[in-house]
Amino acid sequence: MRMYDIIMKKRNGGELSQEEIQFFVEGYTNGKIPDYQVSALMMAIYFQKMTEQETLSLTMAMADSGEKLNLSAIHGVKVDKHSTGGVGDKTSLALTPMVAACGIPVAKMSGRGLGHTGGTIDKLESFPGFTTALTTEQFINNVNRIGIAIMGQTADLAPADKKLYALRDVTATVDNLSLIASSIMSKKLAAGADAIVLDVKTGSGAFMKQEQDARALAEEMVKIGKNAGRKTIAVISDMDQPLGYAVGNALEVKEAIDTLQGNGPADFLELCLTLGSQMLIVGGKAADCKEAEEKLKGVIADGSALKKLAEFVAAQGGDSNVVYQPELLPKARIVLPVEADRSGYISHIVCDEVGICSLMLGGGRETKDSVIDLSVGIVLCRKVGDFVKAGEPLAFIYANDEKRAKEAGKRYFAACTISGTAPTKTRFIKDVIW
Amino acid sequence: MRMYDIIMKKRNGGELSQEEIQFFVEGYTNGKIPDYQVSALMMAIYFQKMTEQETLSLTMAMADSGEKLNLSAIHGVKVDKHSTGGVGDKTSLALTPMVAACGIPVAKMSGRGLGHTGGTIDKLESFPGFTTALTTEQFINNVNRIGIAIMGQTADLAPADKKLYALRDVTATVDNLSLIASSIMSKKLAAGADAIVLDVKTGSGAFMKQEQDARALAEEMVKIGKNAGRKTIAVISDMDQPLGYAVGNALEVKEAIDTLQGNGPADFLELCLTLGSQMLIVGGKAADCKEAEEKLKGVIADGSALKKLAEFVAAQGGDSNVVYQPELLPKARIVLPVEADRSGYISHIVCDEVGICSLMLGGGRETKDSVIDLSVGIVLCRKVGDFVKAGEPLAFIYANDEKRAKEAGKRYFAACTISGTAPTKTRFIKDVIW
Repeated sequence: MRMYDIIMKKRNGGELSQEEIQFFVEGYTNGKIPDYQVSALMMAIYFQKMTEQETLSLTMAMADSGEKLNLSAIHGVKVDKHSTGGVGDKTSLALTPMVAACGIPVAKMSGRGLGHTGGTIDKLESFPGFTTALTTEQFINNVNRIGIAIMGQTADLAPADKKLYALRDVTATVDNLSLIASSIMSKKLAAGADAIVLDVKTGSGAFMKQEQDARALAEEMVKIGKNAGRKTIAVISDMDQPLGYAVGNALEVKEAIDTLQGNGPADFLELCLTLGSQMLIVGGKAADCKEAEEKLKGVIADGSALKKLAEFVAAQGGDSNVVYQPELLPKARIVLPVEADRSGYISHIVCDEVGICSLMLGGGRETKDSVIDLSVGIVLCRKVGDFVKAGEPLAFIYANDEKRAKEAGKRYFAACTISGTAPTKTRFIKDVIW
Repeated sequence: MRMYDIIMKKRNGGELSQEEIQFFVEGYTNGKIPDYQVSALMMAIYFQKMTEQETLSLTMAMADSGEKLNLSAIHGVKVDKHSTGGVGDKTSLALTPMVAACGIPVAKMSGRGLGHTGGTIDKLESFPGFTTALTTEQFINNVNRIGIAIMGQTADLAPADKKLYALRDVTATVDNLSLIASSIMSKKLAAGADAIVLDVKTGSGAFMKQEQDARALAEEMVKIGKNAGRKTIAVISDMDQPLGYAVGNALEVKEAIDTLQGNGPADFLELCLTLGSQMLIVGGKAADCKEAEEKLKGVIADGSALKKLAEFVAAQGGDSNVVYQPELLPKARIVLPVEADRSGYISHIVCDEVGICSLMLGGGRETKDSVIDLSVGIVLCRKVGDFVKAGEPLAFIYANDEKRAKEAGKRYFAACTISGTAPTKTRFIKDVIW
């Protein structure tokens, strides 16, 4: 088999066999096939697309390219959850203790990554002492003992995906549905869960700006999951404005705790209930959405979800007192209001601009080596559809640097549109695909 | 300017500016832009094509990427000639002395290259002592003194093209008209001639199997040449069977000498007269094809073309006696006839198979380091349309190894089709494009 022939076949619109895809993924991972042939293939795939079978083969080959997590020692149906990412996305922080409290074993690998804020791991490090550096044994023991554990992604999880993504990122071959879907799903499959619930965002703060694109990606991932023999469900939700009110690491942890205490923002709670219901259903802990929602609301109401978070934080070396006293979380020195210059309805908030404000404040990573300031961020006071009076705050900027605070404030102000009439309401949960 | 943006622009169907093309060609040549970005761009170009302006920009950028030959010290209109290559293509060997004898200064850079036989330089080395290792000064002096000189391509002639072609060759991005045309034309432009006559072949022994593809390539190259300010003309000719009768280095030299002595094969003579006429016309040595053909036939008839070859061989260190005594050329030990197994008309000869026979015998290069056996090859006895009786030879195999001779003979036999009816005649010269 020759890589040249594989490129030519795809270029000419042919369907690559499983053996051909395996050959190139293995060859690329072990360095026998050079970057320049793979980037040519990626560009050919961009133009010729991949069939359902090819996409599955690519996903499996990447999942098989490194170590795979064996979760068979964990009792029950392991349900993983993945978000395509957005602004203010603290979902895992509240959702995982909720479903764990309902009896779903949560054995999750999370990332740090580049972005407007840190990843789930960075956010969790707002709890002093918290670590995700667990051995696989500790990880599995924790899940069996308290029902929840989160560890960092090992370097050897789907290394082919890591290498391929880095190449696509510099060769303008990222935005192909099959490639995006297989990249996400290869890691999920390698991480060993029995079922996968996908949180696919759409809107100006999401990777997929258009709803039809988000839907297509969701369908592509669900197909892969099913073809790979895992129960897979995707929820499509709005990311045209930030999720909840808080954007920033410790600020989001606080909002997640509020939610587990029954004081969560409506949209964020709705998302947790929707995703959680699917997790409970595929995990066999509820027969339908109604029963599932009742259980999830129950573990919030009786405090067991919050207690689960505290157990989880403690089990991974963190100070669980903070769960009950969130005022102990890292705090920014400066709190600057961004005021409305007129009265009216918030008709639009450019969501990715809010993310950039967080990044400017130091809340995210611009490069792999950036150090995150966990305390900074933005807390919105008004969301789309809300009425604001002139002089009232639109949001508060949390910062540790005057200049940055002012710049972020200006940028936040510019991202908001205030209008004389209330905007049309749109659905927050767009669809559930399975 | 970023290479990423250039790839993205082309991928999305945009037209690259001259600055963008120059940026990537320079960056790639000096190693600042990596292979993997360029191969992705090449694949995007394969799908999105290039406009006339982009193709010109690419050609000029590659022509400008290294040293350019300055032929201004040569008197008269310098006319270069280029062939897209085929089986039995000894055209330069006869054509250049013919036009030189008519007063067109020939200052030609030739290659060795991979292929079924050697390149023009290899063939000329059939004259003992002949060398193309001339300094530019010697090269120009020879042209001014005797009207003809051929030197090897310097490593620094259009180095961008060399690097880009090598990359395209391993990434399935060779067959795009604009890329093929710009590759050929960049070298021709850098080689400094005032006018360019292109010999574009079509048929099973050519790079362009289909006539419409050959025509499209010819048109593309003529456009580039004109846009670059050089008179450019393309002749499209048949390569569905070998050109003339001889295939193999010394065997082709012999056939070229025969042609200059007035005993050339009809098709080969027709090609030399057609190409030569265009060269004389653009070079201002004839008003029209009729006058040009008369002059060219004249220099064959009066022996001045053959004499020019002898002068040229001598001026570059070769033994010019061989021109008058071709029996002194390298000779193969074995001459094996390939016999017809039935009587009938030759209806088809798979042309590239004949090339492969030559390669099998050792007449060409499989890799850059192969040593060519100048003496071996095939001499056809019958061409398409000819009648042959059972037992009569179809061709003679010239070889230095019994086993290889037999294998080549078998392969040659299989490449010929003998049929009860005479095939339809096709035109040898398909068109002249200017």
